[in-house]
Amino acid sequence: MQAKNPKESRTIVTDLVLPSETNPLNNLFGGELLARMDRAASIAARRHSRRIVVTASVNHVAFNKVIPLGSVVTVEAAVSRAFKSSMEIVLDVWIEDRESGKRSKANEAIYTFVAVDETGAPVRVPGIDPETEKEKERFEAALRRKQLSLVLAGKMQPQDATELKAIFD
Amino acid sequence: MQAKNPKESRTIVTDLVLPSETNPLNNLFGGELLARMDRAASIAARRHSRRIVVTASVNHVAFNKVIPLGSVVTVEAAVSRAFKSSMEIVLDVWIEDRESGKRSKANEAIYTFVAVDETGAPVRVPGIDPETEKEKERFEAALRRKQLSLVLAGKMQPQDATELKAIFD
Amino acid sequence: MQAKNPKESRTIVTDLVLPSETNPLNNLFGGELLARMDRAASIAARRHSRRIVVTASVNHVAFNKVIPLGSVVTVEAAVSRAFKSSMEIVLDVWIEDRESGKRSKANEAIYTFVAVDETGAPVRVPGIDPETEKEKERFEAALRRKQLSLVLAGKMQPQDATELKAIFD
Amino acid sequence: MQAKNPKESRTIVTDLVLPSETNPLNNLFGGELLARMDRAASIAARRHSRRIVVTASVNHVAFNKVIPLGSVVTVEAAVSRAFKSSMEIVLDVWIEDRESGKRSKANEAIYTFVAVDETGAPVRVPGIDPETEKEKERFEAALRRKQLSLVLAGKMQPQDATELKAIFD
Amino acid sequence: MQAKNPKESRTIVTDLVLPSETNPLNNLFGGELLARMDRAASIAARRHSRRIVVTASVNHVAFNKVIPLGSVVTVEAAVSRAFKSSMEIVLDVWIEDRESGKRSKANEAIYTFVAVDETGAPVRVPGIDPETEKEKERFEAALRRKQLSLVLAGKMQPQDATELKAIFD
Amino acid sequence: MQAKNPKESRTIVTDLVLPSETNPLNNLFGGELLARMDRAASIAARRHSRRIVVTASVNHVAFNKVIPLGSVVTVEAAVSRAFKSSMEIVLDVWIEDRESGKRSKANEAIYTFVAVDETGAPVRVPGIDPETEKEKERFEAALRRKQLSLVLAGKMQPQDATELKAIFD
Repeated sequence: MQAKNPKESRTIVTDLVLPSETNPLNNLFGGELLARMDRAASIAARRHSRRIVVTASVNHVAFNKVIPLGSVVTVEAAVSRAFKSSMEIVLDVWIEDRESGKRSKANEAIYTFVAVDETGAPVRVPGIDPETEKEKERFEAALRRKQLSLVLAGKMQPQDATELKAIFD
Repeated sequence: MQAKNPKESRTIVTDLVLPSETNPLNNLFGGELLARMDRAASIAARRHSRRIVVTASVNHVAFNKVIPLGSVVTVEAAVSRAFKSSMEIVLDVWIEDRESGKRSKANEAIYTFVAVDETGAPVRVPGIDPETEKEKERFEAALRRKQLSLVLAGKMQPQDATELKAIFD
Repeated sequence: MQAKNPKESRTIVTDLVLPSETNPLNNLFGGELLARMDRAASIAARRHSRRIVVTASVNHVAFNKVIPLGSVVTVEAAVSRAFKSSMEIVLDVWIEDRESGKRSKANEAIYTFVAVDETGAPVRVPGIDPETEKEKERFEAALRRKQLSLVLAGKMQPQDATELKAIFD
Repeated sequence: MQAKNPKESRTIVTDLVLPSETNPLNNLFGGELLARMDRAASIAARRHSRRIVVTASVNHVAFNKVIPLGSVVTVEAAVSRAFKSSMEIVLDVWIEDRESGKRSKANEAIYTFVAVDETGAPVRVPGIDPETEKEKERFEAALRRKQLSLVLAGKMQPQDATELKAIFD
Repeated sequence: MQAKNPKESRTIVTDLVLPSETNPLNNLFGGELLARMDRAASIAARRHSRRIVVTASVNHVAFNKVIPLGSVVTVEAAVSRAFKSSMEIVLDVWIEDRESGKRSKANEAIYTFVAVDETGAPVRVPGIDPETEKEKERFEAALRRKQLSLVLAGKMQPQDATELKAIFD
Repeated sequence: MQAKNPKESRTIVTDLVLPSETNPLNNLFGGELLARMDRAASIAARRHSRRIVVTASVNHVAFNKVIPLGSVVTVEAAVSRAFKSSMEIVLDVWIEDRESGKRSKANEAIYTFVAVDETGAPVRVPGIDPETEKEKERFEAALRRKQLSLVLAGKMQPQDATELKAIFD
């Protein structure tokens, strides 16, 4: 299978924040944003693998910035690195101000999806061939995140997580 | 403010998996489960703080087990530890088999919420006073997770994350 | 089939009242509460019978207390008595005040479900073995309600409804 | 206030049964039908009273006939009798077969609504002036149902419920 | 196949405008009205043809009048003319004021549906036999609209659209 | 106000077709696509005008190609021409095949939006300055469509619709 570029799976989902999706402070519910990001990430994973894909994990997601009712929210997702049958997808969330048109970053998240066949068994996916600086940086970081994920799941000894361990030295 | 026990915020949300919430393999969408957990966690945080609460972050969540169409899914949420104005909520997700009635663990997740006033400014919340072994264990782990979160956000130097660092030694 | 205790089918559904579910006075729509109760009751009936279950009837339901936007609503359902293939489910609806944490009863309702096989034909379900005073009281009342239901449907002569007739003597 | 005819509040809601509204036997969920009937009844009550209306109670509803996926369902609602500020609404539910076009009765239900002002306080509504045989019959039965409702709620002594008592003599 | 009268496919869908369906000015979203009209039109087309029906096109629809939150909206749909396997459906949208009960026209739209078999292949449908002046007028206009549609789709030469051409002479 | 380029309002909405959005042939409901296009068009109109925008009309839309369950659907919207306070938005709908990744055009539609202030009164919007061949072609066609729209609404005499009349000569 030939490696692909993150651009080939790039997915853009632009939508409004409606009243039924907001909390008592009139900002978008965290859970609603998580669900939107899951859909965008699943489309990116599908575009990369051309298979059925299922959510495997959600990495640490911080909700740094509230997203007010009436905002236009853009979720951009792209596969940053692929392992055997799993794909890491990096998501950037932007909101834009209606009056100024100014666009600002609201959020960043990382989801992992697995490609499966009709029976749910994992299947191999193409690798990722990063080009830009940003793509390369995300590609490198993906390995550290995978190790962290394995350590937290008790499937790797912390001392074997070489990429990760380096951070704490 | 008097510390509270995790039991006081315990929240149970039982629901079915409907056809409109499933992927092509007829299992619950990851995004839908993330949204359900966010709602259960927000109720637990509200019960603990008696304030308006907003999602601050979602910790690493692994979807280890598929949840098939027609399952009865129970999400249980309780505040495991409170910091100044933030609360860590631990969630357990159970599914039960209709025919045998057997209940099995499908998932575990950790969300952080912040209590705010009507203007959105953070307000103090009561502490947590753990009683059972499980409650104490989750209380301890919460601190390590907080440090990990601060390190990943670049708000704490890895070498200052003493609880976390210990894992890698 | 061995009789079961109402506790074995007890189902708790806790959820928020969202803006899209409220009427012009900002209270929960009656129809939305009826639908939530139907889902909780169906899960209780399923847990008791371990079969596919379908709504057979809804008893008289009074909406005595409004449920305001932003409330936390808890629906508790349990099978109170089982007949051949039908089950009476009693539901209690509670709301809690965010600031005081005070919990108050908002509603009580009774639904009847029937257990069926894959073709829709009724199948036998286990009986109910009540233990607590409350459980016994609800068990007794269920028979009167069944008679009332049969009389209203024209399937029983009023004078044969001995349990029911006694009320009017 | 001048009395009105049931025709003036007659409300017709025709809709399809979609996959997301069906149970494992591919029939419409009881809860979904209860919610649709509540909306139709609320519109009828509003047309009669021209005020804000809220659900007060749901009378005994039997689900005698399953409503399969893909059916066209018609809910017809009309105010059958009005008391001081409350209105009884009778609903008929019809389904039609796509191929033969044959229409059959699936259900009948009775809801009670109360008209209120902006503060939620009950306000008077016009009376009902029945014309046809069917309208007169429903108008008479409404009083018996009101007494039954008061007896069940413990607000009327069974021996005072003269209309109702007559049934059992 | 015997021709039918538009009355035989007449479909009435009455519903409220809920908060989750409104734009920042608290009026019904155009897209939501388009979806409601599509459902009403599909039921009318199904009643006429007794077959599976799919949306073929939407004619020019003007949103002349805003529909405020809390309105009662009635969509009336009926087949105005049938061609081989396609049916033109004319829709009238009415809103009524809660306080005065006054009903006013908000909208008019035209949808075209095609009847198909289980494989999606077009099948013949009965013709339309108009009776009233209004029905005849809509029947005539349908042909001009069909020609306009064919011209816009590049499937008919403008000079062959005799009915249509007449307007511009 | 300075004229803008269509690129500045370009909006991309990518999403899946879920089971709850499909007809009996397992294809996306026409009404659901109309609603998605309305949301994409409203965002494009908002980006161009930076004002509140409301749907004014939907031009003739043909559903030439079915969109099957599980498809990835991309709606692209951009303002093609602006008049005083109204904007014409052209939409292209693409679907892609999961296995081959092949992308094909499913649909094309034209919506008109009006920019308004908080009271709903129309406000002026910037003009459009087309650059590419495609942009220029759509800019030209917009005027013919506007005339057609005015003629159909009876607000312009057919003989005054010079651009339009030319087609039939």
